Formats: sequence, structure tokens, C-alpha cells
Amino acid sequence: MSSSGTRTDLGRALCIITGASRGFGRVVARRVSELLKPGSALVLAARSGDELRAAAAEVTGAAAGGGGLRVHCVPVDLSLSDGLKELLDTVRTSFTEDMDHVLLINNAGSIGDVSRYMRSFTNMAEVDSYLSFNVSSSLCLTAGVLEACPRRPGLRRSVVNITSLCALKPHCSWVLYCTGKAARDMMFQGAGGGGAGRPGAQLLSRTSGH
Amino acid sequence: MSSSGTRTDLGRALCIITGASRGFGRVVARRVSELLKPGSALVLAARSGDELRAAAAEVTGAAAGGGGLRVHCVPVDLSLSDGLKELLDTVRTSFTEDMDHVLLINNAGSIGDVSRYMRSFTNMAEVDSYLSFNVSSSLCLTAGVLEACPRRPGLRRSVVNITSLCALKPHCSWVLYCTGKAARDMMFQGAGGGGAGRPGAQLLSRTSGH
Repeated sequence: MSSSGTRTDLGRALCIITGASRGFGRVVARRVSELLKPGSALVLAARSGDELRAAAAEVTGAAAGGGGLRVHCVPVDLSLSDGLKELLDTVRTSFTEDMDHVLLINNAGSIGDVSRYMRSFTNMAEVDSYLSFNVSSSLCLTAGVLEACPRRPGLRRSVVNITSLCALKPHCSWVLYCTGKAARDMMFQGAGGGGAGRPGAQLLSRTSGH
Repeated sequence: MSSSGTRTDLGRALCIITGASRGFGRVVARRVSELLKPGSALVLAARSGDELRAAAAEVTGAAAGGGGLRVHCVPVDLSLSDGLKELLDTVRTSFTEDMDHVLLINNAGSIGDVSRYMRSFTNMAEVDSYLSFNVSSSLCLTAGVLEACPRRPGLRRSVVNITSLCALKPHCSWVLYCTGKAARDMMFQGAGGGGAGRPGAQLLSRTSGH
């Protein structure tokens, strides 16, 4: 994301950012918007519509070239199949033939209740819901975006998984958070492997610093 | 599980083994039954009732002391809350005050379709179901067993997570399997931490050799 590298822009891109309404995701949305060429589209997803629209207004103000960037807000709950479907519908309609880059930033995630220890997690529906939002949705969104924007010459496809030190280092009262992050890290490591399974996309895991 | 260590038996124990109807789980069930003192109970869970009853018959034949061991078969699908509840009901009724050890072996797991790569996992319900069976159920079963058999002086509580090298080393067409194993490993590492969150139980992860 740094502009000090060999590339100073992200091209004419479709960029999708989840968890874009606040915190790290909102900062990333703004920073990315400054690196997109005119003709790009930025798809921002989060649960809160109001906060998402405020984030989009910030992005529109900060975007290089002003009107050259289309910004789409998709207020959805990604722990639900319908939410994922709605986001992918917007991805499909926002992707145009003249784009040279698709960039998905899997940032959405929930910390969960970090005051609780393993022995308190007796409710499967609660754990299922946590894993659905924090693990399944990022896998299925990644697969869905790669399907919606198939490989072709001249199209770069990049997927970033926002991770944390908690993917590697356990904390006894952060059981769900560490479990979800470890699962996502492994998922992206495995998916990035070579051979016939190579998805034709660059897959990266990057920490947000916590 | 080795009888060559300082302990040559597992005590008068309640031992719960998931995925006990075949393969590694079935072998473990038989081996464990040889190390249980009279007055113990062995609870075997798996989806297939027929295979489970065959495994139970093997165990009963192999058990030291013959009639001193009660064997309970619980044919359930642990990806469902009702399955977990049924297993925990049997755990509660099998646990007696004179037992000095509770041993849970979280062995159940599914390999999934290892011919498929990340880009094919667009169906959230499929991924949710995999994670529910392979991750949520072992967390909630562990929490449920610790709740059903609360700590008291003289009671040892042990939980074993059957893991795999795939928890550490990604394979590009084993996305779900590696993800599930990494999640479970982290879950047990986190839960085993010290301080106020310590569950008063020994938590171990052991590979079955693949």
C-alpha cells in the first residue's frame, strides 16, 4: 500500500474492502482511493449503513481526480449467505472490461468477547456464527470475487488478508479471535500454493499492527 | 496412551472418544479400554450407529476386567447442536462420583474434498458446515465436558486434540482441512494458557501421524 515502492498507483482497479466503515478498514479505504486511477471503482462493505456512507464521503473527498472514481456502499452482514450474495452482485456490476486490476482486501472481522475463556463456549450457534463471519465469509468472498472477475491477459488480481499477531500467538481469553485468525492465515497460505491449484491471483496476509 | 510411562493405567475414568467408529479413533478406543480400571465408562461417538456398535463390541472384548467397563455408543452428527447435546447428556449420566479421571479425546473430523482449490469454495453453507463439525463441535464439546464434570480434589481432567501436520503446513488443495486443523490447534493452545483462564484441565494436541 506504500507509495514509496516501484508502483505509485494501483491502476484502473476494482477494489473491494470489507469492514470499511471504521478503524483500520476506513483508513485503508481512504489511502487506497488516493492510489486509484480514474475509471476505478471502490466497493465498501460493512454492517452499518450510516457509518459506511460517512466513510464513502471521506473517500470521495480524498480521491485523486475527484469524479474519476465510483464509490459503492454495500451495507451487509457477511456472516449471512444473503449478505455475501449482495456484495458479489455489486462486484459483478462494478467490474468493467477496461480495468487492469482487481484488489480484494479482506479486513472485516470481529474481536468477540475477550473476557471469556474456553470453558464458557458451550453454545455451538455462537461459535458457528463467529466462524461464519470471520472465516467462511472471507474464503467464499475471495472465491466469489475470483469467479466474478476471471483471469485474462493484462488483469492483475490481488487478495489481501488482514491478519494479526494473534494468528500465531495464543492468548487464553482470546480463544475465538486467535482461532479465527489462525484459520484465515492457514487458508490464505494454502490457497496461495503453486501447481494446478494456483488461483492466478496474488494472495497476501498483512497485519494491521495489533 | 503408552503403557511404558510411569502410569500404567488411566485410572477409574470416564473416557469420551469422538470419531470412534473407524480408523484411528477405533484403534484408540480399543487401546484406551485396555488401560481403564474397573468402574470406568467409555463413551464412543460417531455418525454411523452400525460401525459404532461394531467398535464397541471390539472394545468390550478387549477390555481388561471384562464386565468392569461400561461402554456407551452415541450415534450423533456433531456438526449439529442436537448431536452435541445428546452426547453431553450421555457424558452427564455416565460420570460418577468415584471416578478419578475424565479424558476427552477430540478425534472426530472430516477430510473434505481434497481435490478442490480455494476458488471453488463459493458456497458459505458448505464451509460453515465443515467448520461447525471440525472446529465448533470440538470447542463446545470440550467446554461442555468440563462443565459436566467440574473440578474437584482428586479428579484429573485431560483433553486431547487429535491434530495433523496439516495444522502447520499448508497444502493448496487441502484448504478446508488445513484451515480446520490450524483453527483447532490454536484453540487448544490458547485455552491451555495460564492465569485466571486456566481450565483446570490438561490440554494436549497429538498427531495421528498423517
